[in-house]
Amino acid sequence: MSLDLLQSGKIRLDLALEMHDLLRGATQQEVPGVREDKEQFPNATVTTITIMNSQGAQLMNRAVGTYITIDSPALRYFDPAIQTEISTILADKLKALLKLSNTSTILLVGLGNWNATPDALGPKIVEQSVVTRHLFTHAPEALSPGMRNVCAIAPGVLGITGIETAEILRGVVEKVRPEVMIVIDALSAKSVDRIGSTIQIADTGISPGSGVGNQRQGINQETMGCPVIAVGVPTVVHASIIMNEAIEKLMQEMKLFQGMRPPAVDNSIREILTPFEGNLTVTPKEVDSLIQNLSKTIAGGINQALHPQVNPDNFAMYLQ
Amino acid sequence: MSLDLLQSGKIRLDLALEMHDLLRGATQQEVPGVREDKEQFPNATVTTITIMNSQGAQLMNRAVGTYITIDSPALRYFDPAIQTEISTILADKLKALLKLSNTSTILLVGLGNWNATPDALGPKIVEQSVVTRHLFTHAPEALSPGMRNVCAIAPGVLGITGIETAEILRGVVEKVRPEVMIVIDALSAKSVDRIGSTIQIADTGISPGSGVGNQRQGINQETMGCPVIAVGVPTVVHASIIMNEAIEKLMQEMKLFQGMRPPAVDNSIREILTPFEGNLTVTPKEVDSLIQNLSKTIAGGINQALHPQVNPDNFAMYLQ
Amino acid sequence: MSLDLLQSGKIRLDLALEMHDLLRGATQQEVPGVREDKEQFPNATVTTITIMNSQGAQLMNRAVGTYITIDSPALRYFDPAIQTEISTILADKLKALLKLSNTSTILLVGLGNWNATPDALGPKIVEQSVVTRHLFTHAPEALSPGMRNVCAIAPGVLGITGIETAEILRGVVEKVRPEVMIVIDALSAKSVDRIGSTIQIADTGISPGSGVGNQRQGINQETMGCPVIAVGVPTVVHASIIMNEAIEKLMQEMKLFQGMRPPAVDNSIREILTPFEGNLTVTPKEVDSLIQNLSKTIAGGINQALHPQVNPDNFAMYLQ
Amino acid sequence: MSLDLLQSGKIRLDLALEMHDLLRGATQQEVPGVREDKEQFPNATVTTITIMNSQGAQLMNRAVGTYITIDSPALRYFDPAIQTEISTILADKLKALLKLSNTSTILLVGLGNWNATPDALGPKIVEQSVVTRHLFTHAPEALSPGMRNVCAIAPGVLGITGIETAEILRGVVEKVRPEVMIVIDALSAKSVDRIGSTIQIADTGISPGSGVGNQRQGINQETMGCPVIAVGVPTVVHASIIMNEAIEKLMQEMKLFQGMRPPAVDNSIREILTPFEGNLTVTPKEVDSLIQNLSKTIAGGINQALHPQVNPDNFAMYLQ
Repeated sequence: MSLDLLQSGKIRLDLALEMHDLLRGATQQEVPGVREDKEQFPNATVTTITIMNSQGAQLMNRAVGTYITIDSPALRYFDPAIQTEISTILADKLKALLKLSNTSTILLVGLGNWNATPDALGPKIVEQSVVTRHLFTHAPEALSPGMRNVCAIAPGVLGITGIETAEILRGVVEKVRPEVMIVIDALSAKSVDRIGSTIQIADTGISPGSGVGNQRQGINQETMGCPVIAVGVPTVVHASIIMNEAIEKLMQEMKLFQGMRPPAVDNSIREILTPFEGNLTVTPKEVDSLIQNLSKTIAGGINQALHPQVNPDNFAMYLQ
Repeated sequence: MSLDLLQSGKIRLDLALEMHDLLRGATQQEVPGVREDKEQFPNATVTTITIMNSQGAQLMNRAVGTYITIDSPALRYFDPAIQTEISTILADKLKALLKLSNTSTILLVGLGNWNATPDALGPKIVEQSVVTRHLFTHAPEALSPGMRNVCAIAPGVLGITGIETAEILRGVVEKVRPEVMIVIDALSAKSVDRIGSTIQIADTGISPGSGVGNQRQGINQETMGCPVIAVGVPTVVHASIIMNEAIEKLMQEMKLFQGMRPPAVDNSIREILTPFEGNLTVTPKEVDSLIQNLSKTIAGGINQALHPQVNPDNFAMYLQ
Repeated sequence: MSLDLLQSGKIRLDLALEMHDLLRGATQQEVPGVREDKEQFPNATVTTITIMNSQGAQLMNRAVGTYITIDSPALRYFDPAIQTEISTILADKLKALLKLSNTSTILLVGLGNWNATPDALGPKIVEQSVVTRHLFTHAPEALSPGMRNVCAIAPGVLGITGIETAEILRGVVEKVRPEVMIVIDALSAKSVDRIGSTIQIADTGISPGSGVGNQRQGINQETMGCPVIAVGVPTVVHASIIMNEAIEKLMQEMKLFQGMRPPAVDNSIREILTPFEGNLTVTPKEVDSLIQNLSKTIAGGINQALHPQVNPDNFAMYLQ
Repeated sequence: MSLDLLQSGKIRLDLALEMHDLLRGATQQEVPGVREDKEQFPNATVTTITIMNSQGAQLMNRAVGTYITIDSPALRYFDPAIQTEISTILADKLKALLKLSNTSTILLVGLGNWNATPDALGPKIVEQSVVTRHLFTHAPEALSPGMRNVCAIAPGVLGITGIETAEILRGVVEKVRPEVMIVIDALSAKSVDRIGSTIQIADTGISPGSGVGNQRQGINQETMGCPVIAVGVPTVVHASIIMNEAIEKLMQEMKLFQGMRPPAVDNSIREILTPFEGNLTVTPKEVDSLIQNLSKTIAGGINQALHPQVNPDNFAMYLQ
């Protein structure tokens, strides 16, 4: 994808890693104000991108903070051993960001539309989470030791409720007063091979315009009044992106329009996608299995991160 | 059911009409501070109970206000003509209570647990409602004329979210600032023949302890800060009630323990229901068809009441 | 419950164990042609009732065969350790009945109505099962070693399809030609404390008139042409049964009508339950959590029994 | 799309109309053995393509028979008046093809995967259909006059059941012996503007390889032993098709490679789509509303076609 398209603001990259790769370009130059660290695991690569200052923030088009990407192509397929590995890596990374005490209250939020499979990841994860807040108040005897105070909500999307998600959440946060929120969302990527294989954790929350459902308002410390950890996985690529990519690959191979991209390209793409105002997404045909596998892995990681009682040996039993 | 059981507070009657009948007793005496009016329709009887003052309120164990009951045994079966009749009666009664202007904003709330069929009525109705609030803000051109500003939420139940429903709703109301709320809930009745055949509309909202899920906090003008209209339908009867009823019928016919009820009765019932701490409900085996028919009828009535564009001829097409 | 009511054929006991207890009565007499064996586990009692001949079959009102009951009151609550124990006991008992070779093809059938929570157990279990038959044909490389050839169907109920379940299954069996079928169904019990705490495994399949949805035709070797193992769990009790039980307890304590039961009892019960032709069931208010816990435990046991690759340590990861 | 791609067999056009347009090409030449007729309605164009002989069948790559396409771009949006119009046109066209007597038995089949929104159209339509077959046998008194004998099944997909859909259906058909089957499926189109706006009715059933889920075996008179009417609506476009289209538009405008298409094009597309073996589909972001509107319109049309009692004025009330 050309940087122009991004900088025009027409398309937003949900993954910090993809933005960083674009900025670094073929020459792998350093991006000022941004640091990248990598760790290797048997079946995953973890990349931590730290945006250190406002210069980095401006270049990366996102807030100062930490963006951790867990990358595991094997995650696309059903494999209990790999799901356990990734779930546990996710738990470790979350724990480090969350810094919870034993008395912390955590609010889980599953963004997205439960009626549209590619956007249903957030609600599905919330459904499988271990919720305990009501037990602390009404039935402490039903709590096993090693469980933290967790509540959860899937607020729906604007088309279902008529209410901005951020409005609902602000209301809930003011009543529940959580120490921290974890917000889960389906993302869009710029490349098909990110779908279902990449988990991004960010301590900066959710920006306006991101996610499959294009969250209209930000969900972050500034708007919510408490720290917001975002967990996201790409489940779609915008249709215009793969069309672009096809054209650019062709131009490259044919050595056409070097350095210059004819406006006809964008017009052609726009025209083809007119009927739904361009709101078309590319998603695997078997998106239901993909979402099912991801939701178990991620809910398992979150349950492990939040409840000391839940661990790599038993987390699957705690999936609700 | 004996009045004792009710007055002991162990069981709460969700229907004002049933409470009134109990108070009036076999002799049909007047209850001070309470007025009852009846209207006949081809397939329904509408009873309006008005609690006029605090004396009536105390006797009836509920707030001063209007309680309208639409009664139609035929509603239990699938019948388009009768569903249309009841839907339209419901719309008329709601309109009279709501007194909306063209610019009113209304918040619909579907209480209950979408995972347990007998308690899923509220969420199902909200799902089929016409929601427009986001169009007023983001896409006014997509609004047909004659649509009011409506938003909707199904907040889930304590066991799913860990958050009191009333807390979530207070938060949302503070952000949305609706002129009025309509809150829909599945109720419990004291008699099996009320299940699926009775709709209660009350301008006093929802009391603590009512509904199938036993709402812990009230949802009414006092707690929400705006008028709350409650719409409820019995979908269950508590198990202890039908056991009691069986015993009382028998005692009556056998002329046993006249005027006196042996404590052994309550002990027997309690013992039989021990395993689930008495939280057992009686519900028709085909509860799914019942909920399906009711949700269409009631969502149809609410859509008609809220949107001038929706009427008896077209409401079924507006069910989402 | 009196034997009369049962022998009148009005009510059918789905659990062989309950029938046996009734026949043995207070005096614990032997029932000719029937053997009972018990095993103790840390959190479960397993009772194996063997109906050895036609005399036993007639007395027990069910076919000659083996009826294994796993009884664990703790199964009603969420507890990973206990669910794992029960899941593994179930797997062991199933393996002993199934006697599979490595090349066996097994057809799983989830009976019941997915739209009515108390009757949705069968479909939910099938949903969580590991299905592989298509991989054997179309993608053998995607099969891990230690997986057997399994296919699965939830045929729905008469009210949804208009087709007798047994008709659909006979059609499928004739095409798939499984070596054995495992048929899962929600049952009704005669006592509330059986709900969610008892699993029955029978090598005689399903009888007409059993199950929450009252299967109209038998699903057994005779009708299907292959061995049928039935797995069932009570999720409801018929309303008339608890009413009866209340009355009988009262009569006992009051020493009323000794040895004689007035017909007024049955009339009273019938009258109270008239509106739904008596088709009313008693079920816990939190039936959704109950079904959720049971479906994980049982699907886990079935997956372990069928696939050597699935075991007590990893079965939870294999729940789909 | 170039004809080469189609003739290579890599991509199958589900819509006969699109195939016909391709064959006729820019010059609008006649295709031998194929007739096309058009009708205009206020909000729809109906095109009837008749493949008259084996020459036409070979050119069109589908069986001799009638393919009716109802085309209505307005169908993509929620509009009760237009949905009623299209529903009634569909009913009329179906009636003409079905030629039912009053005693006909009809089997409805909803193909597709209920867990993946873009492929869930068939199951959703079956869910909303009026099913009566069990009433004819078990409760004739519950039948209103003017209802035909209809049964219905959603057999699931290979990945869920492990059984070929055609196998399940053959089994059911042999038991139910319907006079005719109506099989509903989500299709893929070659152009985004077909999504949600085109309904195809064919009296030739379903071919192998068609539909979003790519039905592996045909479902037609030959395989089922009774006439099969197929009703399909495009809900996706294959990702490779829009990429191709983008490239071709560009080549056209730039006047590149005239008459010759470099192999690099296909390589580029293939490479981009590698991760999911090319099984990627393009679908509108709001696919849930699309499927919801379509399923009401089509189920309404089918109910009208099958039951004389259901008509344009009341069909919405009969949607289950």
